[in-house]
Amino acid sequence: MGEKKTSIKSIGEFDLIAKYFMPLANDCDGAFSLLDDGAVLDIPEDESIVVTTDCLVEGVHFLHSISPEHVATRALGANLSDLAAMGATPRWIFLSLQLPESKNEQWVSGFAKSLGKMMGRFGVSLAGGDTVSTVGAMGVTITAIGSIKKGSALRRSGAKPGDEIWVSGTLGDADLGLGFLKKNHLNADLSDTESINHLINRHLCPEPRVALGKSLCENAISTACIDISDGLLADLGHICAVSNVSATINMCDVPLSLAAKKLFAGNIDNAQMSALGGGDDYELLFCSGPENSSKIAALGKSIPLSKIGVISEKSLDNTPAVKVVGQDGRLIEVNHHGWEHLK
Amino acid sequence: MGEKKTSIKSIGEFDLIAKYFMPLANDCDGAFSLLDDGAVLDIPEDESIVVTTDCLVEGVHFLHSISPEHVATRALGANLSDLAAMGATPRWIFLSLQLPESKNEQWVSGFAKSLGKMMGRFGVSLAGGDTVSTVGAMGVTITAIGSIKKGSALRRSGAKPGDEIWVSGTLGDADLGLGFLKKNHLNADLSDTESINHLINRHLCPEPRVALGKSLCENAISTACIDISDGLLADLGHICAVSNVSATINMCDVPLSLAAKKLFAGNIDNAQMSALGGGDDYELLFCSGPENSSKIAALGKSIPLSKIGVISEKSLDNTPAVKVVGQDGRLIEVNHHGWEHLK
Repeated sequence: MGEKKTSIKSIGEFDLIAKYFMPLANDCDGAFSLLDDGAVLDIPEDESIVVTTDCLVEGVHFLHSISPEHVATRALGANLSDLAAMGATPRWIFLSLQLPESKNEQWVSGFAKSLGKMMGRFGVSLAGGDTVSTVGAMGVTITAIGSIKKGSALRRSGAKPGDEIWVSGTLGDADLGLGFLKKNHLNADLSDTESINHLINRHLCPEPRVALGKSLCENAISTACIDISDGLLADLGHICAVSNVSATINMCDVPLSLAAKKLFAGNIDNAQMSALGGGDDYELLFCSGPENSSKIAALGKSIPLSKIGVISEKSLDNTPAVKVVGQDGRLIEVNHHGWEHLK
Repeated sequence: MGEKKTSIKSIGEFDLIAKYFMPLANDCDGAFSLLDDGAVLDIPEDESIVVTTDCLVEGVHFLHSISPEHVATRALGANLSDLAAMGATPRWIFLSLQLPESKNEQWVSGFAKSLGKMMGRFGVSLAGGDTVSTVGAMGVTITAIGSIKKGSALRRSGAKPGDEIWVSGTLGDADLGLGFLKKNHLNADLSDTESINHLINRHLCPEPRVALGKSLCENAISTACIDISDGLLADLGHICAVSNVSATINMCDVPLSLAAKKLFAGNIDNAQMSALGGGDDYELLFCSGPENSSKIAALGKSIPLSKIGVISEKSLDNTPAVKVVGQDGRLIEVNHHGWEHLK
């Protein structure tokens, strides 16, 4: 490209921080322009802090080929999604960045600009961090701190038999998008680049459901909530485990995007498998008593919400806590490598 | 050794967390046994939270040869030291652990036990984290959260001309200890293994000065404070930069350990160089007006404190903000590779 690249070593840690990260801390007095040993932060007296940490490693959690801009959106998205799942308002992040020699100043510039842009949209400040060199893979650890009215945090542990299971948005898109990046979807209609780009974008730029989490919290609608990061079945399984219940999902109610439906019209199983097992959608899954249906309908006017199943008493046999049934009511067996109808 | 090693993959992330990390979260209700999306934490209404993040990478911040027990003490020590430098009471940590395939279950067990032991001594709970695999070097990021009375945090920015400069403990030990681990000190008396082990231990098991930081804070003694992690000159330089002052250190007042004096009796310059430039001692450096000398003397009864220099107006020429003078009052020039008397 002819562009001069500046190595991280030649600019140095302190200058790198001053140039690219200090501007992201400007609107937070207690971050002391990142020039002190730590940050000193206050929240309103009637609130608790909510804290979560996520670590992403290049080659493990994202492809080597993705841009610094998308490393930032994926890392921040994953963290803010955890706060959303508890109903918290995001406030500050702490960034630990491990940079191998292959990342130059331009990489950091792109990362920081994208991070700052997304932080701005969610009203989050950078309040501290650590930028270090590594002899291994690039890694990003973000610790996000939010706040919430005392005693009101959404939890995973309150789902009750009879609760309806809801999800926001559409599922499976991020997994399908990753598949296209890996060139794994040759049986899809590859001429529909608009749909393909939609799915890839869902993988690269996750949109944490912060507004929905806060609404669920403020309206006391939800008995249990989680963000879908490991995949629908796995994450609903987490809720079942800590709530001590079972769950049944109706496959035909699991929301697929128009893009997924178009691209996989002839192989809808592929899209459904991603919706059940694929991670990184960062939609919210929540449980709610049937008496809340009108409140949820009101919420659904601004955020797409789908009722996909129901919570039941914990089954005493050795069947999985989460069952999936087809339109005909028959059980669908889902395994790691896909799923098939039983009998 | 004949001991059966269990790979991380065969035990899995969730079981690893349940077995080794959940027990470290037991005494923190808001950690929800590490089974939710985040932690929900409360501090007294008249306090602020103090937050710091440090990242250590194998092969960069510590030798490949050090044990998992010492990876834990070094990582936690560095973090708690930052809280100490602000005068905060440590409360919770969030652990992000990046494990390459070379680390097995036994490694994690040793790491977690050592971490838990040190956490117990400082009254800290594990409130969250993320354990991931990496294709690169092992990395540990800890975000530590403490609390402090509102408006009372120690800062780097308040040093004033006329302030005296104090340090706790002895300096240079950790750097000399690292030298012995690297077999760099062949000109020392290698038969004195007790002294050598003392220095090595200072590198492997840093002891954050939490009690001192709290005392400085409660007694309002200190105008500026920092922990010595980058080295005395560098860290005093940080204080000078943000306080807009200069500083002069008397070389002969910089405290050396008995072990360092014994081992380097014939080459005391080596020990002094480590005391000026070597990092990772995690002692506190603080500035205080001369009117506080009796208060500091009282503190000095339980914690060794040394007055090593004085703060002055910012020099207007291009000389370094931090000067070092010898017993004869002559300037000592210090450079990256050592130091020598000027003229």
